[in-house]
Amino acid sequence: MVEAKTEDTVSSLKIFFEPQSVAVVGASRTPGKLGNTILRNLIKLGYRGRIFPVNPAAQEIEGLQSHPSLAAIPEMVELVVIAIPAHLVLEVMRDCQRKKVKGVVIISSGFSEAGREGMERQRELVRLAAEAGIRMVGPNTTGILNPEGRFTTTFVDLKGVKAGGIGFVAQTGMFAGMMFQWIFSSQNFGLSKVIGLGNKAEVTDHDALDYLAQDEATRVVIMYLEGVRDGRRFLASADRLVRRKPLVVMKGGKTEEGAKAARSHTGSMAGRDEIFEALFKQAGAIRVNDFEELLDLGKTFAYQPLPRGNRIAIISLSGGAGVMATDACLESGLVLASPAGQTLAKLKEKMPAWSTTGNPFDVEPLSEVVTQEGAYRLSLDALLSDPAVDLALLIMSTIRTPQIHADYVVGVARAHPEKPVAVCIIGEASIYHRLFQIMEEANIPVFVGVRRAVASLAALYKYHRFLVNLDRKS
Amino acid sequence: MVEAKTEDTVSSLKIFFEPQSVAVVGASRTPGKLGNTILRNLIKLGYRGRIFPVNPAAQEIEGLQSHPSLAAIPEMVELVVIAIPAHLVLEVMRDCQRKKVKGVVIISSGFSEAGREGMERQRELVRLAAEAGIRMVGPNTTGILNPEGRFTTTFVDLKGVKAGGIGFVAQTGMFAGMMFQWIFSSQNFGLSKVIGLGNKAEVTDHDALDYLAQDEATRVVIMYLEGVRDGRRFLASADRLVRRKPLVVMKGGKTEEGAKAARSHTGSMAGRDEIFEALFKQAGAIRVNDFEELLDLGKTFAYQPLPRGNRIAIISLSGGAGVMATDACLESGLVLASPAGQTLAKLKEKMPAWSTTGNPFDVEPLSEVVTQEGAYRLSLDALLSDPAVDLALLIMSTIRTPQIHADYVVGVARAHPEKPVAVCIIGEASIYHRLFQIMEEANIPVFVGVRRAVASLAALYKYHRFLVNLDRKS
Repeated sequence: MVEAKTEDTVSSLKIFFEPQSVAVVGASRTPGKLGNTILRNLIKLGYRGRIFPVNPAAQEIEGLQSHPSLAAIPEMVELVVIAIPAHLVLEVMRDCQRKKVKGVVIISSGFSEAGREGMERQRELVRLAAEAGIRMVGPNTTGILNPEGRFTTTFVDLKGVKAGGIGFVAQTGMFAGMMFQWIFSSQNFGLSKVIGLGNKAEVTDHDALDYLAQDEATRVVIMYLEGVRDGRRFLASADRLVRRKPLVVMKGGKTEEGAKAARSHTGSMAGRDEIFEALFKQAGAIRVNDFEELLDLGKTFAYQPLPRGNRIAIISLSGGAGVMATDACLESGLVLASPAGQTLAKLKEKMPAWSTTGNPFDVEPLSEVVTQEGAYRLSLDALLSDPAVDLALLIMSTIRTPQIHADYVVGVARAHPEKPVAVCIIGEASIYHRLFQIMEEANIPVFVGVRRAVASLAALYKYHRFLVNLDRKS
Repeated sequence: MVEAKTEDTVSSLKIFFEPQSVAVVGASRTPGKLGNTILRNLIKLGYRGRIFPVNPAAQEIEGLQSHPSLAAIPEMVELVVIAIPAHLVLEVMRDCQRKKVKGVVIISSGFSEAGREGMERQRELVRLAAEAGIRMVGPNTTGILNPEGRFTTTFVDLKGVKAGGIGFVAQTGMFAGMMFQWIFSSQNFGLSKVIGLGNKAEVTDHDALDYLAQDEATRVVIMYLEGVRDGRRFLASADRLVRRKPLVVMKGGKTEEGAKAARSHTGSMAGRDEIFEALFKQAGAIRVNDFEELLDLGKTFAYQPLPRGNRIAIISLSGGAGVMATDACLESGLVLASPAGQTLAKLKEKMPAWSTTGNPFDVEPLSEVVTQEGAYRLSLDALLSDPAVDLALLIMSTIRTPQIHADYVVGVARAHPEKPVAVCIIGEASIYHRLFQIMEEANIPVFVGVRRAVASLAALYKYHRFLVNLDRKS
């Protein structure tokens, strides 16, 4: 393949996110079948372009006229989604050539992940695509999701899908699908663009990064990766992206056995982990170890500004939780802020005589005088107003915590838009969920675990420092 | 204090968990006040002993006759719960001496955590207790919870409390309270005994460990710790305990700053972390870094048997999740099992021709033939039946997963009671919660994150290995 310039990459990939027309080869009338769910998803999302189901045995599918073949479609088709058994895919690819389509998304599996025969089949697929200049996502993937643009090629139920600031590059289809369902049903954040790369036969990591780098809706990119096809290109694309927005990467196949498992399901070479560690470091990517952490950091970057430094104020109703947070902060590159004497004196004025102030700030004595609402509000406001504080973590309980707390916290955080705030809530699950909803709607990231909250705030600082160092170098 | 023998410790601590009678000094008629909630909790839990509210200004509280002082109670009192301002506590302690009570739980704060005056007050408290041979929990704590024995001294709402196999030793009161609420409302496991040690003025870590070591209801001990009063005694008690049941410890105050924060809220010296690391290692305790992990390991030990080795089978609907699980296993001391050829051949018989078998076992091809239910059931049963497999992780999605899955999995796990199984479910939250409920009721630990599930299984193996090494030494 001839190496394309970045601008060309970006404009040629647009077809996957905003096609004017899409054909679904393997469209089905049977609910539950992939080729049926893909069509339903397109219709439910409200896709505004033309949809052409392709199925030789049907007249009409989901209220749309069906066509026996691509050739039989009387209009231009920009993008083709292929969801048929692997051995039939090459023939359809030749139809795509003749139809002069711009892009294909191949959902089908049975290629480089499926032995020698599959590998051969994938090679032929790549040859056909290159021959006609067709851009190709997959095979063996769930493909594309663009909630704001109302387009998708996925077969996963999209109930609860939301548009937002997180771009997600997922290597594998089934995993992306499982993640979709978890995100849509349990998380508050929205997605800007999702690209499931699958076997990466043609469109690959660096293409995805190039596209998301220039995508206005994407504030942060989270990526699940097993192997990189071209390390040099990955580095170049990541380097361009991280100058504009953060990149958070989770790498599967760190161990030799994990790499072997990766090879067997996407046919991708995971390579030695030290090489990736160096690659990610050089590329300014933030590496995480679990998909829960991937989502934690994703939402925190999408919701919050970057801090100007690493001096954190911790406010906690529980001394023990304050201790744990302190440990986690110090272990992840943050330091305890030293608030000005007058900041603490202002708070001390309202506190019982026996009580002391400090960082972590124990909010219990203050709450005995001004209620828990008042104590969270006053202390967070005082500490965020202090120039010696760059960011804050608030650890709340649900012991005597009515819903109103959330409004107080939201109001104070909004009054200090330049300083990141995260919240931990440890307590009764139903109150947690209500507070979670209110605060995350207001772009405050909420966590149960102290360590996860701190890791997310620390990532904001790491990226800030990375940008500062970049500036210094240039 | 004279060093007591272990049997004496155990019998003298029994008073905190199964007292025949309890007085609550500071009992209150005002809902929401500590001294009111403690009484209500006792009544709601169904405490079967005598309860004596003590409040000079009340005739009756929560339907119970109130007494102006301890002295005014016309009967013997075994245990006294004290929830009044700190400066009044010493006087009540003298009443306890005169009343010849066996134990006191001091909820009040304002002692060693509250400056020089508080420290002096705590010293006097200890002197008075020792003088009369009164055992004392606290001050500055939520105290005791014994769900099965229907006794508590806590002021935290106990809605959802359940009896079970986990013993919990918590240093700090407020944190324990927050954890209670989280556990009762979001977790399925039950608690055997909880001891909130607070400032540890008298009853301390090694006492709690001695008690829980011999407590039949306690299958595993989880512990949040900031400092240890007597390292040698801790080691001796932990050593006795870990021969009978696992001990999982989370240590607050790992960093210098964290240790400083610990000092300021419980007055406890956290000490250098290397010392604790060595202490925990020598004591055979399993150390974790977050309270979520503390609960993960707690429930897994409470639910599951120990494996006989570290050879794990991974079954996953998603190749990507299988890769992540593999990495996590290899990084935490587990190895991939090599199932016998005939085990895999038996599964391969039912699978499509193009598909391959291995470990991780990709359940997708099999599920195309025998449904997802069938695929999970068949593969889990085949792999657990293989002598080359010691334990298993099942990674499920909620994509086309009806509730019935859980029954299949539960049935297979029950048929192999000697091999631990954990389940990850990544997908739609409401289906997750339903499956979680069914499987955890059947003692199968359920997780979202792959890494958390693997860490929990790995802990089972670590403890097994620890016991084997003990046997070899003796």
